[in-house]
Amino acid sequence: MKPVKVGICGLGTVGGGTFNVLTRNAAEIARRAGRGIEVAQIAARRINPKCDTGDIPITADVLEVACNPEIDIVVELIGGYTLARDLVLQAIDNGKHVVTANKALIAVHGNEIFAKARERGVIVAFEASVAGGIPIIKAIREGLAGNQINWLAGIINGTGNFILTEMREKGRTFEDVLKEAQELGYAEVDPTFDVEGIDAAHKLTILASIAFGIPLQFDKAYTEGISRLTTADVNYAEALGYRIKHLGVARSTAAGIELRVHPTLIPADRLIANVNGVMNAVMVNGDAVGSTLYYGAGAGMEPTASAVVADLVDVARALTTDPNNRVPHLAFQPDSLSAHPILPIGACESAYYLRIQAKDHPGVLAQVATILSERGINIESIMQKEVEEHDGLVPVILVTHRVVEQRIDDAIAALESLDDVVGKVVRIRVEQLA
Amino acid sequence: MKPVKVGICGLGTVGGGTFNVLTRNAAEIARRAGRGIEVAQIAARRINPKCDTGDIPITADVLEVACNPEIDIVVELIGGYTLARDLVLQAIDNGKHVVTANKALIAVHGNEIFAKARERGVIVAFEASVAGGIPIIKAIREGLAGNQINWLAGIINGTGNFILTEMREKGRTFEDVLKEAQELGYAEVDPTFDVEGIDAAHKLTILASIAFGIPLQFDKAYTEGISRLTTADVNYAEALGYRIKHLGVARSTAAGIELRVHPTLIPADRLIANVNGVMNAVMVNGDAVGSTLYYGAGAGMEPTASAVVADLVDVARALTTDPNNRVPHLAFQPDSLSAHPILPIGACESAYYLRIQAKDHPGVLAQVATILSERGINIESIMQKEVEEHDGLVPVILVTHRVVEQRIDDAIAALESLDDVVGKVVRIRVEQLA
Repeated sequence: MKPVKVGICGLGTVGGGTFNVLTRNAAEIARRAGRGIEVAQIAARRINPKCDTGDIPITADVLEVACNPEIDIVVELIGGYTLARDLVLQAIDNGKHVVTANKALIAVHGNEIFAKARERGVIVAFEASVAGGIPIIKAIREGLAGNQINWLAGIINGTGNFILTEMREKGRTFEDVLKEAQELGYAEVDPTFDVEGIDAAHKLTILASIAFGIPLQFDKAYTEGISRLTTADVNYAEALGYRIKHLGVARSTAAGIELRVHPTLIPADRLIANVNGVMNAVMVNGDAVGSTLYYGAGAGMEPTASAVVADLVDVARALTTDPNNRVPHLAFQPDSLSAHPILPIGACESAYYLRIQAKDHPGVLAQVATILSERGINIESIMQKEVEEHDGLVPVILVTHRVVEQRIDDAIAALESLDDVVGKVVRIRVEQLA
Repeated sequence: MKPVKVGICGLGTVGGGTFNVLTRNAAEIARRAGRGIEVAQIAARRINPKCDTGDIPITADVLEVACNPEIDIVVELIGGYTLARDLVLQAIDNGKHVVTANKALIAVHGNEIFAKARERGVIVAFEASVAGGIPIIKAIREGLAGNQINWLAGIINGTGNFILTEMREKGRTFEDVLKEAQELGYAEVDPTFDVEGIDAAHKLTILASIAFGIPLQFDKAYTEGISRLTTADVNYAEALGYRIKHLGVARSTAAGIELRVHPTLIPADRLIANVNGVMNAVMVNGDAVGSTLYYGAGAGMEPTASAVVADLVDVARALTTDPNNRVPHLAFQPDSLSAHPILPIGACESAYYLRIQAKDHPGVLAQVATILSERGINIESIMQKEVEEHDGLVPVILVTHRVVEQRIDDAIAALESLDDVVGKVVRIRVEQLA
């Protein structure tokens, strides 16, 4: 078979990695795909010194690639929402298949993009958009196709996980580690996307769609970052037998679908609690398979390129398939997506870690216990520490059983109104992931 | 599209699970596949009380299913080599696609079966043959298609891992746990396949083929079981910061391919060292992606069925593809399989844990160190225990750096010939899996 011609748009970290992997592993890839995958054009504003592009034509205008009649597959690696969306839609319009690593684009504009791709009978592949090199889209969309997915939970932002790992292992503060992560290039100068959970919410939105067969609904995802986490809470969690991870959680319940990103206490002996540094991992629980876990590098030049190239091989194979009998973009046939609603966070269910700063008076514990018990909230474990010297306050730390979040909100309001409770109650969700 | 018709051969644990998952999740599966997957015939010697087969025709003769003109896909779940081979070859002859969970059949007769399937333009899918519900075949064959795979290492026998977990956590002996595993139904009455590593070697043979693009060569796999492991070694390993796991390891080196199943010390902080009980996990290291890990239930009624059904959905999609542009059975195009040889165990490289029972004489340690040093074997760590009361011997435990196995064999022979060394030297391989 003749080689497939690819146009790479963007020659930054992922684009450069993709070019290098396609070049270095050309023979291995052809041994697998049964045909070569050749880069016919590159669009880049500047040359990547890590790439030896030889005499491959380079343009500064990405839209040229979308119109190049020689090209079968457009690889969108420029990032962002605006130009990337134009590029992908134009490529589709011109009957080209698309491979992208752009989670923001898919999470926000995916429904529109996939509808257009269906009309034109082309594929938009996006394995690299979630968890870098881990083939998690393929695992859920194809590997677990026999299951009703109950829930999934993932560490899907490497920067956040690096920060939490350093806080736990070295007792460092959030601000201190963030600064180092920025210096190391793990975190952006504006770290909001990473540390406030927006990047993770993009990825979670995509995973939830392919797990449950729902349209992409990024605007309905609940997002809470790690920037307010203190080393005190990291240590108390540890003492209770938990680790704190920044998790994306999606769960299918009778009432609707939970879609939430937040710091989460996980029992320390769970495999996912031991995923450290910049690494990613996703747990997926299906009714037949039970719990599975997928682990690997969630970002970086070549790990992400690994996913892009796998998509290219997939698309090369799909060139000779019936467009109506391919793996659907969102795993489920577009005419059978579910209207099951995304639940507001108040209707989500979880266990909770609460830290209450109390005055050292007799009876505080009884008041706390009464407020919880009146709201039907059961306590799983409780820990009262000694008076802290500097403020004379007693930290009361407890973990509840599972309960709907509204009830905890209500309990927290009542706790904060007690005379013996000072300041805000710290609340962190707890997942057993059993 | 009209439903795909499936014939299930064998209605035991996996067959029953497959029937139940196909029935219970029929709507979910059709939402994904775009068509129903219907069981048109079952071959079983006896009814499975866990399955409500309604008015589906049941035959006692599996070969009837291979000839049934109504059936598109034959699902081979009878196990064994002989009748299973006949069934699969007849089904292929009749132009039917095949899905099988039979690792022994694929590892031993796969080359013949795949050649015949190619001739007839049909697919033989075997995701369920390795690591139960974990989509590991798909991950390696498709998800990592852009990589040159460097190595893989897996806990791919749940019975063995259950035994090792109990030995470590509860200080129990091998024999004691095996007996319980047999009572629980985890282990067969004849446990040889599980505890001597034959089952794991079947699976490793399959993984190595799809990772490196080599023909299936089960007869060349090195296999060492866990039946001689003692709790003493489990505990010493622990004291040195390691866990003992029964690993299948395949590694591509310049000289050839290592293909070996044996007890292995792994640093305790590695994720795979923390995979306990009957669970399975496979690490795969590729040149672009780095190290990835896949974890889940490696056996059982519905986890294995999960993989069988995923294969059925894949085959249903592939019905409308060009047979020459599908995912190749062994991941690589059949005309580009590699003749890279499987190395004999003596030529494999590893680090080693050695336990030497020495008489409590001065100078023993020096003699040991000299023997190793003369053979260019470097010591990574060493631990000398107190004299054991019952025999007056001193256990000397050490871990070496990586070295070719022949040199360790030679060193062990020299150690065992020392006057101050009593009995056999215990040798267990060590892998860092970094």
